[in-house]
Amino acid sequence: MKIGIVGGTGDIGEGMAMRLSPIFEVIVGSRETEKAELTCKLGSETLKKRGLTCSLTGVSNQSAIDDADVVILAIPFKHLASTLETLHGFDGKTVISPVNPMEKRDFFTSVPPDDGSAALMIKRLLPKDAKICTAFNTIAANKWKALDEELSYSVPVCGDDADAKDEVMGIVNKVSKLQAFDAGPLAASCMVESLTPLLLNIARYNKMRDVGIQFR
Amino acid sequence: MKIGIVGGTGDIGEGMAMRLSPIFEVIVGSRETEKAELTCKLGSETLKKRGLTCSLTGVSNQSAIDDADVVILAIPFKHLASTLETLHGFDGKTVISPVNPMEKRDFFTSVPPDDGSAALMIKRLLPKDAKICTAFNTIAANKWKALDEELSYSVPVCGDDADAKDEVMGIVNKVSKLQAFDAGPLAASCMVESLTPLLLNIARYNKMRDVGIQFR
Repeated sequence: MKIGIVGGTGDIGEGMAMRLSPIFEVIVGSRETEKAELTCKLGSETLKKRGLTCSLTGVSNQSAIDDADVVILAIPFKHLASTLETLHGFDGKTVISPVNPMEKRDFFTSVPPDDGSAALMIKRLLPKDAKICTAFNTIAANKWKALDEELSYSVPVCGDDADAKDEVMGIVNKVSKLQAFDAGPLAASCMVESLTPLLLNIARYNKMRDVGIQFR
Repeated sequence: MKIGIVGGTGDIGEGMAMRLSPIFEVIVGSRETEKAELTCKLGSETLKKRGLTCSLTGVSNQSAIDDADVVILAIPFKHLASTLETLHGFDGKTVISPVNPMEKRDFFTSVPPDDGSAALMIKRLLPKDAKICTAFNTIAANKWKALDEELSYSVPVCGDDADAKDEVMGIVNKVSKLQAFDAGPLAASCMVESLTPLLLNIARYNKMRDVGIQFR
């Protein structure tokens, strides 16, 4: 399976690429192709030193969509709409949103767009036959990058297309010790997207780092 | 410490009373005093059979406030405003809200009031010197009642009064294996209150029962 990461050289995207590329064919997209190529070169070397074989290709964001079966939008919420405006080719594809619309005021707070959630906004902006799912919303960039640590977390997955949701939950369950949970339709994604600001508050007020979540 | 439970004969309140009464002096309030007395009689017998001594007193909702140091509002959101209208005496007291404003549509969804959260609504409705904290929002009624099971869950606590928040976190940490986490000011409580509908969706769509949460 080919997984394209739009924003694959960003904080979250880079760690994701490292974790996913020993399991899937990973296509790292960036606004600057050279940056994507460099990220993939360095990433491949790091993984090779650990005795891991990987498939990591650096391309433009557009090529990461065109060449992939499943696309992950690793983009901060504030750049989401403007980035999607410049891209096409999502038709019929499974699209994963780990995006959390939030702000840091005195504390971190969820600031959903008028659509209700980032995932619902993406659904409105992309072609009707793109299959949007939320996943990976609560996995911090540092956790993705800490390759020595297992990711023993729960991952809620929302989506309206049952087959795409199964596919995404299958991807989640192959990564480290992540465990996917069906969290309902995309209309329920606002509750998933508000987890990350809550976890950031808990980290801050309890002097913890990169707090994750488990359902049990 | 005397803990009063308003709505102490309801689904959540009854289980709370059973768990808290071996540790604290628990005053169970109800609209019907006889019902509170019966709940306490039966609860005391159950706990005695388990070799536990407890302090459980059944009274009216108003007396549960008047006689307590800390008041828990174990009231469903839909009855919250109308119940608080009939009660007084909250001045200077620590008040715990486990209330989650939510609805079951096709799925469970958080439906915060205009104040932003149930806790902020309570703050508006009660005297200025009442110290409101959220706690216990995600612990299901069945879990409270399953006295044979340890409660190995995380409990986010929001509040604006530092001493009251410490007091509430201290109470949480004395119950079974619950672990309190400071989740910030009361203005951050909307993210805590949206956890329960998320957990209910996860239970429903993954055929689980009474899903809880751990931060780690």
